[in-house]
Amino acid sequence: MGLDNVTVKPHEKLATALAPELTAVNTLIRERMASKHAPRIPEVTAHLVEAGGKRLRPMLTLAAAKACGYDGPYHIHLAATVEFIHTATLLHDDVVDESAKRRGRPTANLLWDNKSSVLVGDYLFARSFQLMTECNSMQVMHILSGASATIAEGEVLQLTAAQDLATDEAIYLQVVRGKTAALFSAATKVGGVIAGADPKIVQALHDYGDALGVSFQIVDDLLDYEGTGETGKNVGDDFRERKLTLPVIKAVAKADDAERAFWVKTIEKGKQDDGDLEHAIALLKKHDALTETRVEALDWAEKAKAALTSLPDTDIRQMLSEIADYVVARLR
Amino acid sequence: MGLDNVTVKPHEKLATALAPELTAVNTLIRERMASKHAPRIPEVTAHLVEAGGKRLRPMLTLAAAKACGYDGPYHIHLAATVEFIHTATLLHDDVVDESAKRRGRPTANLLWDNKSSVLVGDYLFARSFQLMTECNSMQVMHILSGASATIAEGEVLQLTAAQDLATDEAIYLQVVRGKTAALFSAATKVGGVIAGADPKIVQALHDYGDALGVSFQIVDDLLDYEGTGETGKNVGDDFRERKLTLPVIKAVAKADDAERAFWVKTIEKGKQDDGDLEHAIALLKKHDALTETRVEALDWAEKAKAALTSLPDTDIRQMLSEIADYVVARLR
Repeated sequence: MGLDNVTVKPHEKLATALAPELTAVNTLIRERMASKHAPRIPEVTAHLVEAGGKRLRPMLTLAAAKACGYDGPYHIHLAATVEFIHTATLLHDDVVDESAKRRGRPTANLLWDNKSSVLVGDYLFARSFQLMTECNSMQVMHILSGASATIAEGEVLQLTAAQDLATDEAIYLQVVRGKTAALFSAATKVGGVIAGADPKIVQALHDYGDALGVSFQIVDDLLDYEGTGETGKNVGDDFRERKLTLPVIKAVAKADDAERAFWVKTIEKGKQDDGDLEHAIALLKKHDALTETRVEALDWAEKAKAALTSLPDTDIRQMLSEIADYVVARLR
Repeated sequence: MGLDNVTVKPHEKLATALAPELTAVNTLIRERMASKHAPRIPEVTAHLVEAGGKRLRPMLTLAAAKACGYDGPYHIHLAATVEFIHTATLLHDDVVDESAKRRGRPTANLLWDNKSSVLVGDYLFARSFQLMTECNSMQVMHILSGASATIAEGEVLQLTAAQDLATDEAIYLQVVRGKTAALFSAATKVGGVIAGADPKIVQALHDYGDALGVSFQIVDDLLDYEGTGETGKNVGDDFRERKLTLPVIKAVAKADDAERAFWVKTIEKGKQDDGDLEHAIALLKKHDALTETRVEALDWAEKAKAALTSLPDTDIRQMLSEIADYVVARLR
């Protein structure tokens, strides 16, 4: 199993199983991204929300709630909340990274301006808090407000860790846990909480989301060096933005003097010339950094699947397990 | 009364009356703006939080709670929440406006970068939601998450209304209600709610905060054309940023053809030459736009004071009334 599942597309299988709920989530999202007074808001948001993202995070919330036997209405609100937080962070990330493309389309900051991206992101954050408030669960509020703080913390840490060759694997993991895994684990955890699941199950859902998120981000960082363009990533973005991601950290750790000088020039000093990206990729290959990074992504996917064993044995649990395989299958 | 009160400095009188609470708020703010993993966060936040702002908004929350006889601990959390939301919006505003100065000091986006301002702002928003969650009041959560959405909406509306000479006084009021009054009214309202005050009193506190906020912003917009530098404002910022504030809206409404052409050139097309700011101010004076704007600011301050009459007659109520006078006294 694992990498052989590519043709099945597990996220589509999950989307089919959750079809009525996902329709309700999309309706709620469209309803709540509206603004009576500022039409710019739904314009910008629609550009991103309708852009064919996989709705992976809201699906995780819906699936977690269903896996715990939930039959109330609030997993819909929570799934929309999670998607709003995700969309808000994408808008702000694209400003911070000065990105021009997202999912193969021009970014909002390019189509409108940075100002709109910052303020519409703020609007979506606020709307996400309104939505979660409607669920009347203080535990849910704690988890999601905590996750939002952790996301921002991870992004700021990434900012200061970038361009710094002293960034090691521990710092990298902390950044990844913040900027990506915090929302994955909150998404799955609140699904269990809203269903009133046993604390042990809630913890298992958290651990699944956490490991899945770490795996997801490591794969993303790997695709930034070996993607094909089909994945919607621009190969070399992280290198140009001088981010210390896992492949580079591994190669820097094994660098000889000449190689280290190359990393200092391109990452620390930001002096990048023609051919430097190709040279960087050659160094990653020379030191097995891409292969080792791939192994770590697979390890985290296995951890995610292992966490699921404490959940009731249902079709939904099986699908969540396949999602973990799918995340790493993007590497093919 | 009114403008004669300048020497008393009512916000200092209120600060003295609320001294122990304000100390507790400052301690809580310092505690919660910390970050275990990302030292950049407290650096940026401290620059702004310690910059000698008047803590007007948190004082409003404390005063509202005390005016309603509250003796619990949560008005401290709410006051810190309100200051965090305010600080987050300042950080994002300075990015959006590309400001270089705030309260007479260089802005965070200048000292660090736009990225840090965006992400640290996000962190403070998230922390504010964590703080308010601790108060365990769903009504408080509704009010503050709603206010956050209204603030962002007002900022986006301002973005699209800028550079557009069709912006009228109704749109201006909507922008002001969003970007400024929403947080003032939420600040006073949650003080009443946490104290368990009668809905009539809560409504009065809302109306006071709303009118005070509108008055405050109109004064701010006026000082942008007739400030002295002592007020910490750079005269002409709004003109350079092509914002349609009340004085300009009033002058545009009375413009003859030549004057209209001037506004089209400077505000709509953004072609500003030496002497244009001085010419703009001359036009504002010619059409009594500054005087009329001042009258509106005074009217709103009176509305704020009138709203207070339903509150119990206490020293704190008197001080809140004096704050309304003080806000417009900045005009002298």
